[in-house]
Amino acid sequence: MIEVALFGAGRIGKIHAANLAAQAGVQFKYVVDVNAAAASALAALHGGVAASVETALADPAIKAVVIASSTDTHADLIQRAAAAGKAIFCEKPVDLTLERARDCAAAVAKAGVLCMIGFQRRYDPTFSAVKQRILQGEIGTPEMLVVTSRDPGPPPVSYIKVSGGIFKDMLIHDFDIFRWILDDEAVSVHATGSCLVDPAIAEAGDLDSTAVTIRTAKGRLCQINTTRRAAYGYDQRFEVLGSAGMLQAGNHKPTEVVAYSAHNVSADKPEDFFLERYRVAYANEMSHFFDALTKGTPLRTTVQDGLKALELAEAATLSWREQRIVHL
Amino acid sequence: MIEVALFGAGRIGKIHAANLAAQAGVQFKYVVDVNAAAASALAALHGGVAASVETALADPAIKAVVIASSTDTHADLIQRAAAAGKAIFCEKPVDLTLERARDCAAAVAKAGVLCMIGFQRRYDPTFSAVKQRILQGEIGTPEMLVVTSRDPGPPPVSYIKVSGGIFKDMLIHDFDIFRWILDDEAVSVHATGSCLVDPAIAEAGDLDSTAVTIRTAKGRLCQINTTRRAAYGYDQRFEVLGSAGMLQAGNHKPTEVVAYSAHNVSADKPEDFFLERYRVAYANEMSHFFDALTKGTPLRTTVQDGLKALELAEAATLSWREQRIVHL
Amino acid sequence: MIEVALFGAGRIGKIHAANLAAQAGVQFKYVVDVNAAAASALAALHGGVAASVETALADPAIKAVVIASSTDTHADLIQRAAAAGKAIFCEKPVDLTLERARDCAAAVAKAGVLCMIGFQRRYDPTFSAVKQRILQGEIGTPEMLVVTSRDPGPPPVSYIKVSGGIFKDMLIHDFDIFRWILDDEAVSVHATGSCLVDPAIAEAGDLDSTAVTIRTAKGRLCQINTTRRAAYGYDQRFEVLGSAGMLQAGNHKPTEVVAYSAHNVSADKPEDFFLERYRVAYANEMSHFFDALTKGTPLRTTVQDGLKALELAEAATLSWREQRIVHL
Amino acid sequence: MIEVALFGAGRIGKIHAANLAAQAGVQFKYVVDVNAAAASALAALHGGVAASVETALADPAIKAVVIASSTDTHADLIQRAAAAGKAIFCEKPVDLTLERARDCAAAVAKAGVLCMIGFQRRYDPTFSAVKQRILQGEIGTPEMLVVTSRDPGPPPVSYIKVSGGIFKDMLIHDFDIFRWILDDEAVSVHATGSCLVDPAIAEAGDLDSTAVTIRTAKGRLCQINTTRRAAYGYDQRFEVLGSAGMLQAGNHKPTEVVAYSAHNVSADKPEDFFLERYRVAYANEMSHFFDALTKGTPLRTTVQDGLKALELAEAATLSWREQRIVHL
Repeated sequence: MIEVALFGAGRIGKIHAANLAAQAGVQFKYVVDVNAAAASALAALHGGVAASVETALADPAIKAVVIASSTDTHADLIQRAAAAGKAIFCEKPVDLTLERARDCAAAVAKAGVLCMIGFQRRYDPTFSAVKQRILQGEIGTPEMLVVTSRDPGPPPVSYIKVSGGIFKDMLIHDFDIFRWILDDEAVSVHATGSCLVDPAIAEAGDLDSTAVTIRTAKGRLCQINTTRRAAYGYDQRFEVLGSAGMLQAGNHKPTEVVAYSAHNVSADKPEDFFLERYRVAYANEMSHFFDALTKGTPLRTTVQDGLKALELAEAATLSWREQRIVHL
Repeated sequence: MIEVALFGAGRIGKIHAANLAAQAGVQFKYVVDVNAAAASALAALHGGVAASVETALADPAIKAVVIASSTDTHADLIQRAAAAGKAIFCEKPVDLTLERARDCAAAVAKAGVLCMIGFQRRYDPTFSAVKQRILQGEIGTPEMLVVTSRDPGPPPVSYIKVSGGIFKDMLIHDFDIFRWILDDEAVSVHATGSCLVDPAIAEAGDLDSTAVTIRTAKGRLCQINTTRRAAYGYDQRFEVLGSAGMLQAGNHKPTEVVAYSAHNVSADKPEDFFLERYRVAYANEMSHFFDALTKGTPLRTTVQDGLKALELAEAATLSWREQRIVHL
Repeated sequence: MIEVALFGAGRIGKIHAANLAAQAGVQFKYVVDVNAAAASALAALHGGVAASVETALADPAIKAVVIASSTDTHADLIQRAAAAGKAIFCEKPVDLTLERARDCAAAVAKAGVLCMIGFQRRYDPTFSAVKQRILQGEIGTPEMLVVTSRDPGPPPVSYIKVSGGIFKDMLIHDFDIFRWILDDEAVSVHATGSCLVDPAIAEAGDLDSTAVTIRTAKGRLCQINTTRRAAYGYDQRFEVLGSAGMLQAGNHKPTEVVAYSAHNVSADKPEDFFLERYRVAYANEMSHFFDALTKGTPLRTTVQDGLKALELAEAATLSWREQRIVHL
Repeated sequence: MIEVALFGAGRIGKIHAANLAAQAGVQFKYVVDVNAAAASALAALHGGVAASVETALADPAIKAVVIASSTDTHADLIQRAAAAGKAIFCEKPVDLTLERARDCAAAVAKAGVLCMIGFQRRYDPTFSAVKQRILQGEIGTPEMLVVTSRDPGPPPVSYIKVSGGIFKDMLIHDFDIFRWILDDEAVSVHATGSCLVDPAIAEAGDLDSTAVTIRTAKGRLCQINTTRRAAYGYDQRFEVLGSAGMLQAGNHKPTEVVAYSAHNVSADKPEDFFLERYRVAYANEMSHFFDALTKGTPLRTTVQDGLKALELAEAATLSWREQRIVHL
């Protein structure tokens, strides 16, 4: 039985708590949160107890930690957990600065512990099926990737101000998808964007609509379009063109009802937002983490993947700010 | 905490066991099965113990039983559980004979216990969304229902011989869908069919392909087509035409991948079989049962629904055997 | 150059006139209609002249006639045109009575002329692709056919009174699809129906909603559902299950626009009605007729097909009226 | 009756000839082509005669010309036809150089003649329905456009060498779609690309795969992805995100057959190539031209649109060659 401590009792912490509780061979032990009441409530729900960071990391029975606290705590907790010899699952991003993220990677390497980054999209049934089918050669050599990644609505401007900007906060997932699907690294990035949704986002120094183009070492091309506000909901699609065909990853829907009216033929909108859309992905990634821990299966998303996505986010930010192509 | 006994540790028993274990406020206590090893293994997996029918029913702490044993045990267990004052969840069918099924309904009525029949399709997200939208008036008055219900492959002939025939074994679900969706009762049934899949099924006195037409008191029409073998998998669809529009309930798919090849544009086949297709439905129906028990919400599928579907199965069998329209 | 006379300058006559005018090697010469102004106008539009039946049939240059006049004139025109040695294209039905239809078949056989019946659905791109793919073995042996055939709205009751009833007027097309797709003949027919759309249709002794089941000599099954009023438009679909797969023929749409709104994801309704839905089919069938005439390619829809569909319509009418299964 | 001369008897000339012949109120008179046999054959097919440029332009009865000859002849013919006072329909592009294209625009303005450029996509039923629905406000304010434009296979390298490059030859259509759909002008263009299909295309100094991003005066964003070789055929889609929703323009298919096999559920590939995909668009644009001529309806695609698309093609070429963002 692997005993586990969870850092963070917020929205995503609750998802991980439920998935930890459902994990065979895993004992959900501690919940750590600055909000003590939230920690206690979440712990009680799944048979654990609230605890401090120190207690959790000092307990030798704790073999693994799941970091789902606020972004500014990630680097510190990764470094301390690595020093304590714990296996680490950490939500994206590793940190908002490349420097601290690199420190984390170094700490993990030095400690020789597992460190998985929560790019949950790689564990989504649809997205991972596309990846498998590419690997099986179904579309020949991948050549071009088009990513559509749109949120149903913007977060509060107060959040946007501490988010690191849209490229680090939102597109970091898309940058990871790019690297994973094309199995290649960027050599140049062009990013542009606008504030079309809310002028307050512009005032906060950020964008709400972006268009990014990446070129890889092998000449492959990737285009990413994002918005903070799609009136029709959460839109998470990509398509990859290969020399022998094309694969599209479409949205998931709540039901398979089709309605014929006097006006049109309609189906459900996509699943509401990431908690619904990636419900299965979150469960799969947690199983993947423990499989890596107990069976030695290789991690699909490492701290290096976290660094690489962050580098792309930095490059995109620079490209947008300086209105130029950034070469990596 | 409601303590529960489960009868049956087979394929469907395992599904119910997992859903019982995940139910808040429910204590999964006993597993009863003629196969003692299976009972013990399933009990161990979810924190219960194996027991006899007598022990389970004699334990006053047991407030509810879930009957998922073989069909020929249903009626006896319903009657004994009712006599013991337990709330009852029983897999379809109540029994293969109308007489015994009516005895069960009488026993349940006399004991005044809850008795829910496991017509899980009514709890499927797609099917229940169609029902809700009809109730909201989206398609006006329902007029016609077309049900397509096809298994991926036939069961062993040994099973078919004790199944009660295709109308009681397979179409009983479709008869229930008919009553639920059209919210009306049959006045006449016409059934015909063939053995196109396996001559051994004909030798066993049964059909593998059927076409049924039902007319209701209000003049509404229903057509059901079934086969024991759809080469492309498990096909579970229906469409209901109303005076103001039409609603279709489509198949569920494992992923939302679309592939473009030199030959065609393709998507996933439907979910493999009932355990996959109705995974959410099975979870929903168990929650529904305990909501009825603890909150008094009305049961969506009662023992009377079990009787009515069985009556239609009997009528269809008669129509086929005697090659005539059967009036109810 | 083949010179042609067209009988009937109404809605369907106009379609045929345009297709005749566009036919290479065909000279559109006469239009015959009881409404002289309509005949003249249609003739002028495509470079012909109005004429009487006698003139048209007496002109030895006329090698072919297209009969698109009212149903009660079909049999007489077929017999006269056959006697005059003309190749005949005639709209369905041959006649409303089997007796006269058989007389027509005899007249055609005696004269040794070509006689094609306008079951245009067999020439629809989607429907004919399904037929081709069945012939190529894609779904193995056909076993079951489900036909959905729904009009957007009922014709005037005055028309219904002289239509021969819904089975001869509307389902005759579906009976022809049944024979063509399953490549088999009926041994029994069960038909039922209701008046759910308009009580005046019931008063006229007809139905507006029907459910028909046909069983073939080889044990294949067919179910047809129809209505005179689908609130969402003209619905023309069928699906054929075979031992190795299934083929569906879906509706055609005006455009391929998909709209994502705050409510749903929607596409176009099907093409409005038969003139739009079967526009290409009407052109194809006319080319087919002249190919048969000039190149000797076999007719896909003969006067015998007209008889067979009529026999099924008669059987269905009898089944409904006498509430019994009719054996053929 | 408007008499018309057609320049060019090649692939696209044949399409226009058939559409001219089918145009009410239009007399198809002359066909001009350097290949005299081709000109005569096409003229004969539709009741015209072969002629020289001089004859055609000198005939005062000729009110309109349709220019479908090779690209290098467009500018000369436009200028001469304008000088002769003819209404002009010209295939894209006006010319491969901006300078000569501007001369043409000036000549047209001076002569005061109609000049329509054959951006046929604006007349496609699906694309024009999207435009109409945007104008009706269905998706609020357009914000982002994603265009997917892929050919089934590359033309011969000999053609590529004289094509003006992929941006002028292929993307010019997409640049026109961008301006039309977003109803805005570009302020900056970023283009990149690769040779992934055929190294001979790189040797000819061109690309076969491109990724273009355009930003407009209003801050709207457009991304275009193209390839000369999509293994699955001709792919012509776009989607436009607005503040209140999204509209997608999808591919057209030959039939609406859906096949269920043991492997997947499949539909037809898109229509083969532009002659099939835009068959209706070509007919519609010719009607539009004559409506403008006879009824004074405003032209949807003018010589100015031809200039603007060419300017974007020049800017994209520059962006790619100099690896920088080009500001307009």
